[in-house]
Amino acid sequence: MKNPRIGLVQMSVCADKEKNLQSAEHGIYEAVSKGADIVVLPEMFICPYITSDFPVFAEPEGGLSWQALSSMARKNNVVLVAGTIPELDGEGNIYNTCFIFDAMGNGIGKHRKVHLFDISLSGGQYFKESDTLTPGNSATVFDTGFCTAGTAVCYDLRFPELFRLMVDHGAELVTIPGAFNMTTGPAHWELLFRTRGLDNQVFMAGCAPARDESGPYISYGNSIITSPWGEILGRLDEKEGVLVREIDLGKLMRIREELPLLKHRRPDVYACRRERGEYQAPPP
Amino acid sequence: MKNPRIGLVQMSVCADKEKNLQSAEHGIYEAVSKGADIVVLPEMFICPYITSDFPVFAEPEGGLSWQALSSMARKNNVVLVAGTIPELDGEGNIYNTCFIFDAMGNGIGKHRKVHLFDISLSGGQYFKESDTLTPGNSATVFDTGFCTAGTAVCYDLRFPELFRLMVDHGAELVTIPGAFNMTTGPAHWELLFRTRGLDNQVFMAGCAPARDESGPYISYGNSIITSPWGEILGRLDEKEGVLVREIDLGKLMRIREELPLLKHRRPDVYACRRERGEYQAPPP
Repeated sequence: MKNPRIGLVQMSVCADKEKNLQSAEHGIYEAVSKGADIVVLPEMFICPYITSDFPVFAEPEGGLSWQALSSMARKNNVVLVAGTIPELDGEGNIYNTCFIFDAMGNGIGKHRKVHLFDISLSGGQYFKESDTLTPGNSATVFDTGFCTAGTAVCYDLRFPELFRLMVDHGAELVTIPGAFNMTTGPAHWELLFRTRGLDNQVFMAGCAPARDESGPYISYGNSIITSPWGEILGRLDEKEGVLVREIDLGKLMRIREELPLLKHRRPDVYACRRERGEYQAPPP
Repeated sequence: MKNPRIGLVQMSVCADKEKNLQSAEHGIYEAVSKGADIVVLPEMFICPYITSDFPVFAEPEGGLSWQALSSMARKNNVVLVAGTIPELDGEGNIYNTCFIFDAMGNGIGKHRKVHLFDISLSGGQYFKESDTLTPGNSATVFDTGFCTAGTAVCYDLRFPELFRLMVDHGAELVTIPGAFNMTTGPAHWELLFRTRGLDNQVFMAGCAPARDESGPYISYGNSIITSPWGEILGRLDEKEGVLVREIDLGKLMRIREELPLLKHRRPDVYACRRERGEYQAPPP
């Protein structure tokens, strides 16, 4: 089977939904021009990353933005992991949701961010997605036509358990629309992509918004693609840009065969959540 | 409570058990002279890292090497995570076992390596611990008198689930006697220590044998101590040496409070191992 090329669209995001959709469309076109078969957009690429804006910009699945994204996938004949937008359900709940489309524009999956980013520091820094968002309740895996892929969103990246669920459902590639900030980005972004890929023997592709120093939430940028061996295959800086890299699925199979980490897991031990046992030592 | 200083003894290992025990004793003395409260020795510091040697060097718990190590802990008044030795049980099984002693020389825990390193590459490289070893079946956590610590051994480092078990039993520090090689060491050693520490918000301390280019198994060395923020607090090169670093338990508590990753886990989602669901998209 053909190795797919992954394209990341590290676009600038502003407060104008129409303009953001246009930027996404231009980025997708550029990525496809460079050979991309699967394109990933950033987290909350449609609105500023402010919790109070999420209800204002929220739309139902199948709404205008969803239709526009479906159309972009179809026109460009590309699999589209459409970043995230605030999704409004029938009960008034809002989710941080990634919609996924095949190259005909059909919806083939969606992921609602499972782990909401809630921090409240003694020093005063405060960010609570849960002020306006509801969390999702499942891992997301879909067939790209090239390989099986999973998607998770930003803070989800910090939770190894979610990656085990994806890989157990067949994921060979995990795409992450994300937006780490200027504290967590330099400290942890690269490290987490490399290790999740290594532990789970999958390719990883993370797409962030370009950095805007004047914005309310300053994105680290640095959209990245890593290998199942923990290598960096490509990485952008903080500016707008498009990154396209082929992923070698044969290499993934060789790594899984030669260092069979996934087979060496010990679910019998992990399931054993008994109390800390008493240890009886011999007399010294 | 006083912050402990962790000492790593990156010693050379040869085929002479007595000489190896002497090297360990000198290293422990040096680490304690430099202020260490908890000392860690390398994996299989008592014999060459060759599967056929394990039965030859194996000893029961409470045997001569165990007694010697207990005595080193007592004489130096130090908590000792005594690397690993091949442990023989009453049924003839051999384990890759880490014994742990308090500063009075009492045995306070032991860890039998849970994940055995078995690789058999098409190109010919072959290493199977399971040829002579039996795996352990549980995670190991103990009280150091300074903090709660866990221990795992080398290849165990590659399995995030084992670290979740340790942290759920209270681990604030995880000590790893290990011996990565010249392929996996440069590629993965640092990455894994930094990320396991970051994900689980624990300090990590990994102790390897010094590199011996003429030996049967060439250790990467690079004994390392990392923080709950994923930082490297100290690291040796490939030569013999002792590394001592204080770990700041107050910092650990601040990180757990400010970025409460452990509380943000979603066991309700992780427990849900159902089949991949069908996704129903709206019409494009």
